[in-house]
Amino acid sequence: MHKISMLGAGLIGMFYTQTLHANRSRDRVHVLYSRTEQKAKEAAAAWDVEKWTTDMDEAINDPDTDVVVIGLPNVLHKEAVLKAAKAGKAVLCTKPLATNAEDALEMLQAVESAGVFHGYLEDLTYTPKMLKTIDSVRKGAIGKVLWTRSRETHPGPHSAWFWDKGSSGGGAIVDMGCHCIEISRALVGKEVRPLEVVCWADTQVHPIDVEDSAIGLIRYESGAVGQFETSWCFRGGMDLRDEVSGTEGTVWLNHWLRTGFEMFTNVGQQGYVAEKAEGDKGWLFPVGDEVAELGYVHMFTDMLDALDGGKKPMEDFYDGYVVNTIMDACYRSVASKRWEPVELELWRGAEGAEEKGGFVDYDQQHYLIKEETMPDGKTKLILKEKSSGRIVERIVSG
Amino acid sequence: MHKISMLGAGLIGMFYTQTLHANRSRDRVHVLYSRTEQKAKEAAAAWDVEKWTTDMDEAINDPDTDVVVIGLPNVLHKEAVLKAAKAGKAVLCTKPLATNAEDALEMLQAVESAGVFHGYLEDLTYTPKMLKTIDSVRKGAIGKVLWTRSRETHPGPHSAWFWDKGSSGGGAIVDMGCHCIEISRALVGKEVRPLEVVCWADTQVHPIDVEDSAIGLIRYESGAVGQFETSWCFRGGMDLRDEVSGTEGTVWLNHWLRTGFEMFTNVGQQGYVAEKAEGDKGWLFPVGDEVAELGYVHMFTDMLDALDGGKKPMEDFYDGYVVNTIMDACYRSVASKRWEPVELELWRGAEGAEEKGGFVDYDQQHYLIKEETMPDGKTKLILKEKSSGRIVERIVSG
Amino acid sequence: MHKISMLGAGLIGMFYTQTLHANRSRDRVHVLYSRTEQKAKEAAAAWDVEKWTTDMDEAINDPDTDVVVIGLPNVLHKEAVLKAAKAGKAVLCTKPLATNAEDALEMLQAVESAGVFHGYLEDLTYTPKMLKTIDSVRKGAIGKVLWTRSRETHPGPHSAWFWDKGSSGGGAIVDMGCHCIEISRALVGKEVRPLEVVCWADTQVHPIDVEDSAIGLIRYESGAVGQFETSWCFRGGMDLRDEVSGTEGTVWLNHWLRTGFEMFTNVGQQGYVAEKAEGDKGWLFPVGDEVAELGYVHMFTDMLDALDGGKKPMEDFYDGYVVNTIMDACYRSVASKRWEPVELELWRGAEGAEEKGGFVDYDQQHYLIKEETMPDGKTKLILKEKSSGRIVERIVSG
Amino acid sequence: MHKISMLGAGLIGMFYTQTLHANRSRDRVHVLYSRTEQKAKEAAAAWDVEKWTTDMDEAINDPDTDVVVIGLPNVLHKEAVLKAAKAGKAVLCTKPLATNAEDALEMLQAVESAGVFHGYLEDLTYTPKMLKTIDSVRKGAIGKVLWTRSRETHPGPHSAWFWDKGSSGGGAIVDMGCHCIEISRALVGKEVRPLEVVCWADTQVHPIDVEDSAIGLIRYESGAVGQFETSWCFRGGMDLRDEVSGTEGTVWLNHWLRTGFEMFTNVGQQGYVAEKAEGDKGWLFPVGDEVAELGYVHMFTDMLDALDGGKKPMEDFYDGYVVNTIMDACYRSVASKRWEPVELELWRGAEGAEEKGGFVDYDQQHYLIKEETMPDGKTKLILKEKSSGRIVERIVSG
Repeated sequence: MHKISMLGAGLIGMFYTQTLHANRSRDRVHVLYSRTEQKAKEAAAAWDVEKWTTDMDEAINDPDTDVVVIGLPNVLHKEAVLKAAKAGKAVLCTKPLATNAEDALEMLQAVESAGVFHGYLEDLTYTPKMLKTIDSVRKGAIGKVLWTRSRETHPGPHSAWFWDKGSSGGGAIVDMGCHCIEISRALVGKEVRPLEVVCWADTQVHPIDVEDSAIGLIRYESGAVGQFETSWCFRGGMDLRDEVSGTEGTVWLNHWLRTGFEMFTNVGQQGYVAEKAEGDKGWLFPVGDEVAELGYVHMFTDMLDALDGGKKPMEDFYDGYVVNTIMDACYRSVASKRWEPVELELWRGAEGAEEKGGFVDYDQQHYLIKEETMPDGKTKLILKEKSSGRIVERIVSG
Repeated sequence: MHKISMLGAGLIGMFYTQTLHANRSRDRVHVLYSRTEQKAKEAAAAWDVEKWTTDMDEAINDPDTDVVVIGLPNVLHKEAVLKAAKAGKAVLCTKPLATNAEDALEMLQAVESAGVFHGYLEDLTYTPKMLKTIDSVRKGAIGKVLWTRSRETHPGPHSAWFWDKGSSGGGAIVDMGCHCIEISRALVGKEVRPLEVVCWADTQVHPIDVEDSAIGLIRYESGAVGQFETSWCFRGGMDLRDEVSGTEGTVWLNHWLRTGFEMFTNVGQQGYVAEKAEGDKGWLFPVGDEVAELGYVHMFTDMLDALDGGKKPMEDFYDGYVVNTIMDACYRSVASKRWEPVELELWRGAEGAEEKGGFVDYDQQHYLIKEETMPDGKTKLILKEKSSGRIVERIVSG
Repeated sequence: MHKISMLGAGLIGMFYTQTLHANRSRDRVHVLYSRTEQKAKEAAAAWDVEKWTTDMDEAINDPDTDVVVIGLPNVLHKEAVLKAAKAGKAVLCTKPLATNAEDALEMLQAVESAGVFHGYLEDLTYTPKMLKTIDSVRKGAIGKVLWTRSRETHPGPHSAWFWDKGSSGGGAIVDMGCHCIEISRALVGKEVRPLEVVCWADTQVHPIDVEDSAIGLIRYESGAVGQFETSWCFRGGMDLRDEVSGTEGTVWLNHWLRTGFEMFTNVGQQGYVAEKAEGDKGWLFPVGDEVAELGYVHMFTDMLDALDGGKKPMEDFYDGYVVNTIMDACYRSVASKRWEPVELELWRGAEGAEEKGGFVDYDQQHYLIKEETMPDGKTKLILKEKSSGRIVERIVSG
Repeated sequence: MHKISMLGAGLIGMFYTQTLHANRSRDRVHVLYSRTEQKAKEAAAAWDVEKWTTDMDEAINDPDTDVVVIGLPNVLHKEAVLKAAKAGKAVLCTKPLATNAEDALEMLQAVESAGVFHGYLEDLTYTPKMLKTIDSVRKGAIGKVLWTRSRETHPGPHSAWFWDKGSSGGGAIVDMGCHCIEISRALVGKEVRPLEVVCWADTQVHPIDVEDSAIGLIRYESGAVGQFETSWCFRGGMDLRDEVSGTEGTVWLNHWLRTGFEMFTNVGQQGYVAEKAEGDKGWLFPVGDEVAELGYVHMFTDMLDALDGGKKPMEDFYDGYVVNTIMDACYRSVASKRWEPVELELWRGAEGAEEKGGFVDYDQQHYLIKEETMPDGKTKLILKEKSSGRIVERIVSG
């Protein structure tokens, strides 16, 4: 059983606490920290947490606490991590780890020096669908990974601080691109080095100083490309979809708007629909168990089981550092309007480009380009003559 | 914390135990009973259960045990329940409660006389989607409920005993109709009396003595109709869908084959796809967290929280008894080829038919039948003259 | 090229005329008949039809006309058909053919005696998806057909006469059940005799004299069951779905609300969404080419090509007669509350029950009941011993 | 009625001819040209075309011909267009118009100088779903367009020439990017100038000299971004999806793999499934009326109606020229690894950047950033103080 200090009383703190307390759990949040007294008090009451405080040090250093969970605005992560490391407490930090790679590296080094357990709370690699997908992909179900795509778009975040560069450190890239980038790494393989990125970002709609939309491509040493699409301008709810394609298959995941739960109501849904839902009449698309679908359940299980078992969790601060490094390259690319290298000072993955797969032989003289069933039922082969390079076509009866 | 004796080491016992042990749980299965020694031994090892036995009494009367969970073939439920009641242990019994209403009533009376906690393990009313749907429907999101529809079809059960009338007591109706019927009750409202049923059943494909397909209609006192469709002849995996329609809206749930998880693989999925999946190549439809999607997580949370809190769980033996009574009427209807009354000796719901809603007035002279936007953008009204009963049409500009 | 007299200027007349005039067609509607002058005049102008009249005889007997298309309220079909037959014109009649089997038979005999071409305008067996499905099913793609299901539900028809028993002859069964029944026949095979039906119907919501909801089952000589679900009480648009299951597969068709066209609009769709759509804000589900998706394009192509080629179209008056006969049995079943025989005076299909398929052998001693991949990757076989009838289980390594 | 010379006897020629002859059409292909005699002869027989030839001039100059349709490999389009223009025949050319902007401009000038009717056969802007979407978007249903996304991926083209740079002039960009780019223009508005592009392309899998995968972004003067994704490496069939997002809504179109037609077959579909389908067992996703779903029906209707009516069709050679110009910029970007300007020598759209919409006022002191319903039912407002730029949060009761 763990006694947890929760730093932060916003939506993320609530989702985290709900998850930690749910389903016959043996763990408890027992201290809640918020910068504002009223929020701390109210949330502690609502979520059945024993103590609350507006003093971060008190929350971290509580003698009963063995785990600090950070659910604060981005710019406060570093301070909280450094304090928890100093206090010798296990520390779990929400995404993004930091607002830039330099800070992330310092935080990584702090927890590693202190020898404390560290977990990076990237929930979206822990959704039940994503865990099964990663497993299948690693086992070869779709062959060599060629392309990943991750989208998170919605009508904008729920708390004011996200929209304020001073608190968030950035816009859609920092808020949601971090999810998409880590999903891409998990699918391509974390051992594969991200080489370079190109990124578009713009403030298309809102009166703010950060980007409200961004699209980026990450090129990996294996030749795979990771595509991400993020926006705070999307209307219709929260669109949370991932895809991965390989030489032998593909996986499509829809985490939010199309999960087999569809409702039409002429009079209103009479309550909360789902995070970022718009409206409560007409066709609605609720989500079953939100915290489970968002990965929180499996994430905290992995984190606390790893802590109990003396193991590394699936996502730790090194992952957070890599993501921050890729995001830094994205912002440079937005400014330079060109591909920019991913400058990883610390690389713990594999070295050396993965070999491109050899071509597929049809027979000794030909490579196979394509095989297809035609409308008339026959099979058409497209072949390349190895000697001449000439491309030829053969019809084989179905 | 509860110490649980699990009776049964088949697929259902495994799903139950996985669920009870999952996600930082404070409860444990500590005795496992199976009729065959090898199964008991292997399952105990695989699921990390301390003790095993082939003696049902030993499992039930274990001094550390405070909860008995029954995951045995249908015909053994009664014996196990009676023993657990006698031992004064809380008892949770899988579906169907019994193989007929008479036994079910005897079991209900046994646990009530003994004063032990009793839960009916009807997981499919506990799926996260269904819990939210029940909540919305009860709050009025779809108006007055008119129609429910529940389908469970797949290529047939996994254990031999299901196919053997001596162990199962029946076919698709007993195996899956029980789910569908309870889903219907939960959506229509358990306080509403089921009046009569009509049911078709046949052995369409398999060399067995029980029905492998059945379709039934339950008519409720409120005028609502509950439709169920069950089959062991379906090809393509497990089709688990529910719908409910009311005067103001509708809900469509897909629990299994279309949940936002789609995979194409040319080389095979390289592992388990999902319960009742067929094949592991081509387009596959895995399920995220199976035990959560099937309702086990929320079911055991409700059961054990209710036990701890001295409350009634959402599903108890009375519900199991009502379901058995409805199923008995279904079998009578199959034989008589006509509607048959639901003969509830013990009715704990509301008495007296719910009033039909009055008609909707358009103005003092007319009832409103229909309002529709036409292709040309205008609105067409269909009205009934109160005095004459004449039906008239009015075009109103859009 | 055909010159067509269109009888009826309602929605169905408009859809028919739009279809007949569309896409570089060589055919033309050149006379339009409506009972009310204003409607006739306006529709003729809107649809670019040369002549209009309020005199049915004039429309039918127009010397240039070679084809009469009937798109009138149900009770007027008979009069129009008899006149067209007398005039020696090809006649295409919308669904249902008549309001009862007796009239339908008289109409069939009239056109056959007169030797005129006759087509039954059952569009929903002609949707592009249904045509391909029928073709696949007939070729054996899903094995022996066991079960069909057809649903048409929406918030009620667009014209007043549907709601008035005097004009329509019935409610949801006559209006939409006729579609579902013919779809079932097309999938089971029109040569297979429908034996008996059981049907529930009720007036659940509206101030009318006919049923606004009905569910029925048709049992065929082959053992297949055809299920239909119809309602004028459904909220959320028009739900138009069909399914067919067989021993080797299944097909699921969605014709309307989920066809790969999804729109969210916060400000309104700014125009017509789709037939029977409700509301124009929030999530909407328009349909691509409505008349094509509803089968009108392929239906008229088949009808007029058959007429040109001296062939029988896919749907003719005999089909309409069978459908009316089945509907008559449905109404009798609603009244008697039991299965009722389908009383076909005239049966042109196959005689003698189709044989049930033999059971599948696993080896000489056993029938195969079931084969399934378990979560641990192994394969479980369920077998029946031929000699003893005992059901046994075998685990085979994956 | 038109008499058409069809140049090309491959899959595209077949789809075009099928469409032109379908559904009671009054138009006919009466000459078929192919470079190889056997193909010409066989296709003419199969498609019921009166004459065939291997002489392009003969096909174009046939005295009965008034329309030349070009369905040839990309590098032959220019020759065929110049000949048709010289012959004074109406000319409809398949996509892409040319293999580069310079040729496309020359072709445009040739048809304009000759005064012949010219149509650009970009079918995917003519799909029924896309036509309705364009109409809704133009009418304001989704507000100001911010982002479009178009994907065409499949396992590679059916004819050898596509894979051969000498015949195709390029890979996935030229083959499929042209569709995606024109879809983007149609949704953003053709009057809006495309300013610059960034593009990634690679040869990920095949033994060929052109790109088999490409992703690109087009930035428009209005601030909108058009994203395209093309690949010949996708496994699972043909993925044909489009999306458009605006300030007030979004539209999602799925043209191929998820259109409401789903089939499981254990024994094989017994025939053609759909263009680019892989395998014919397990879960399959056929398409209703392929030529209609792909836009051919509405495309030829628009083209020939425009020709008859002396109007411009929706897509003409100027559109083809703009698409080629954008693709040229894409290839430059792939080489330079940076954003590249779209160099339109000839711009016929609007001049001057569209104004960015002003910000939304909440009250005199504040801009509105966001309004959201929270899990507790309250409404949270995020506002920006106009004077200070400070971002603040207000909770309003639901």
